[in-house]
Amino acid sequence: MRRFSYLLLCLCFNSIYAQSVKYQKIYIQGKALTNANEYHRLDTVNYPNIPSEVKRLLTHPTGLFVSFKTNSEVISAKWCVTDKKVSLNMTAIANKGLDLYIKRNGKWQFAGVGKPSKTCSEDKIVENMDNSEKECLLYLPIWDEVKELQIGVARDAFIEELPNPFQKRILIYGSSIVHGASASRSGMPYPARLSRSTGLNFINLGLSGAAKMEYPVADMVAGITADAYILDCVPNSSPEEIKERTAYLVTSIRNKQATAPIIIVQSIIREHGYWNKNVGNRVKAQNEQIAKEFNTLQKQGLKNLYFITADDLLGKEHDATVDGTHPNDLGFDKMIEKLQPAILEILTKHGIYSASNK
Amino acid sequence: MRRFSYLLLCLCFNSIYAQSVKYQKIYIQGKALTNANEYHRLDTVNYPNIPSEVKRLLTHPTGLFVSFKTNSEVISAKWCVTDKKVSLNMTAIANKGLDLYIKRNGKWQFAGVGKPSKTCSEDKIVENMDNSEKECLLYLPIWDEVKELQIGVARDAFIEELPNPFQKRILIYGSSIVHGASASRSGMPYPARLSRSTGLNFINLGLSGAAKMEYPVADMVAGITADAYILDCVPNSSPEEIKERTAYLVTSIRNKQATAPIIIVQSIIREHGYWNKNVGNRVKAQNEQIAKEFNTLQKQGLKNLYFITADDLLGKEHDATVDGTHPNDLGFDKMIEKLQPAILEILTKHGIYSASNK
Repeated sequence: MRRFSYLLLCLCFNSIYAQSVKYQKIYIQGKALTNANEYHRLDTVNYPNIPSEVKRLLTHPTGLFVSFKTNSEVISAKWCVTDKKVSLNMTAIANKGLDLYIKRNGKWQFAGVGKPSKTCSEDKIVENMDNSEKECLLYLPIWDEVKELQIGVARDAFIEELPNPFQKRILIYGSSIVHGASASRSGMPYPARLSRSTGLNFINLGLSGAAKMEYPVADMVAGITADAYILDCVPNSSPEEIKERTAYLVTSIRNKQATAPIIIVQSIIREHGYWNKNVGNRVKAQNEQIAKEFNTLQKQGLKNLYFITADDLLGKEHDATVDGTHPNDLGFDKMIEKLQPAILEILTKHGIYSASNK
Repeated sequence: MRRFSYLLLCLCFNSIYAQSVKYQKIYIQGKALTNANEYHRLDTVNYPNIPSEVKRLLTHPTGLFVSFKTNSEVISAKWCVTDKKVSLNMTAIANKGLDLYIKRNGKWQFAGVGKPSKTCSEDKIVENMDNSEKECLLYLPIWDEVKELQIGVARDAFIEELPNPFQKRILIYGSSIVHGASASRSGMPYPARLSRSTGLNFINLGLSGAAKMEYPVADMVAGITADAYILDCVPNSSPEEIKERTAYLVTSIRNKQATAPIIIVQSIIREHGYWNKNVGNRVKAQNEQIAKEFNTLQKQGLKNLYFITADDLLGKEHDATVDGTHPNDLGFDKMIEKLQPAILEILTKHGIYSASNK
């Protein structure tokens, strides 16, 4: 009898919930190019020669989002991911979940997360809001393939797709750090935070462990038209790879994009590398090598090439990572403290940014 | 043949690794009282009337640590936890893992984490260090029961237990936030960070969702001798519970500890509560009620009672939580920015803190 009552209660609840919320798909934005598979960052079928690991990672929708307005008092989502395990250094909410922001007084403000309960989840991201019209931005998961995403609002409310709220195109090619490890929510990796705080469209080509500047990948990056390029790929490339491949990557971009600023970022100093001599020495060698490559390219007359050093990129306190390598939200905050003014200074000089972008 | 070679390689590796590292147990510190079960925060058998959920949460060793010195170039650990799932809003590293700090120039500096691979794990926390003598502090997991912990150092190195490096006793009774949700590593909840940055011994009685000031729990807290008490339990208590129970908790402490400062902290403003009116109103009501209770107790002449408001406790940017409620590392950083000077001012006034504690 108790089981029957429980079943009845569940049925009623589901029925009330289903009646009160209507679901629809919304166009996925934030991508480098338009894709056949809307949940992937790039159509890797167009790049047959890139490494298979790069292809796999480009299926993760880190940095992708939907943008809409609604007067609904509740915002829900239904979405499906794979059954892959959550990374040890990441929350399930960032790895497989959703992250919602709503505009208030011209600024994007966090509103709620979609918690991934299983392979296919349904969750109320925020409820009990007033019914004023709101501009919304919902980020997809950073570390899993998404198979389906639908946004739900109250049955009696309106919902309307909005264009990409961010201006211009700044492509960031980078390591797991750009990819988002280990932000606590999917909207907290530094590229997404930079977009929200500047109004510029930072496009995420973070490739965990696989940002090694291979020639076919360099060709792929160079082939994506953007107003500026940020190369934060030093953490994944050995000093030898940096020596062999940096010039090809930079000149490939320059050959396709005659004047776009190219900003090279040194590797963060891995915080366990202050103790582990091998790790510390490797990062030092990587950063020395990339500085040499930058200097050589500059001497060769390559214009609009910039360099941001690792100094204080994770602050001074050594509590900026989850595991010695991957920034936690405090680490991403420190990165933004250094990167944002440096990047905006360059973009302003090139007429790509002005305060009115925001 | 390939499988055989792989097996041989594994056996060799395990054998070399086992030979090169010696393991031992180290006395667990950071507890409120000495326990029969060394991995629990309190012996709940001594408190038969506290709620079963409080008993369960006190088995989580959040805030517990081992302290030792060694000249080993590698520090490893073997430890066992339960097979419970990792919380959606937490990393496995914080939930079930270990977090190591080493003293450098008088300051505790992060050195590495123990990654939990399964119920029983073995992991190198840091390796390739120089062989100078180092003072080490290793935190246990924040959100699971630990069954066993052994520390490993190189077979030819020494290891020696050290006394608790922190002075005095400041007991923090609080919610999931004190308990550590959602720091990225087990040494990053605010009580542990306060200990490392001040040199004072902040003892963690965080009880996720269960810090409701029930009378038997109030008796338990009051019965633990400390130099000061911080009550950060407002997030878990309804306005009615706050009205009914605060005076009993505070006067119980005062009856047992005649002069110890008692510091009440308002609830953080839950960040999804800026949109969800029900959540926002509830936090407002909780914070108004606790302010009333504080004022009443002060008017009644209860001495050495202090109050820290919620203003800016999570900063101003609204990116300080993983899920709207639980601080990420950026949120804990904001909390410390406000709490540390406020707490140290009170403790200095009472002669509990001076810069020489550190």
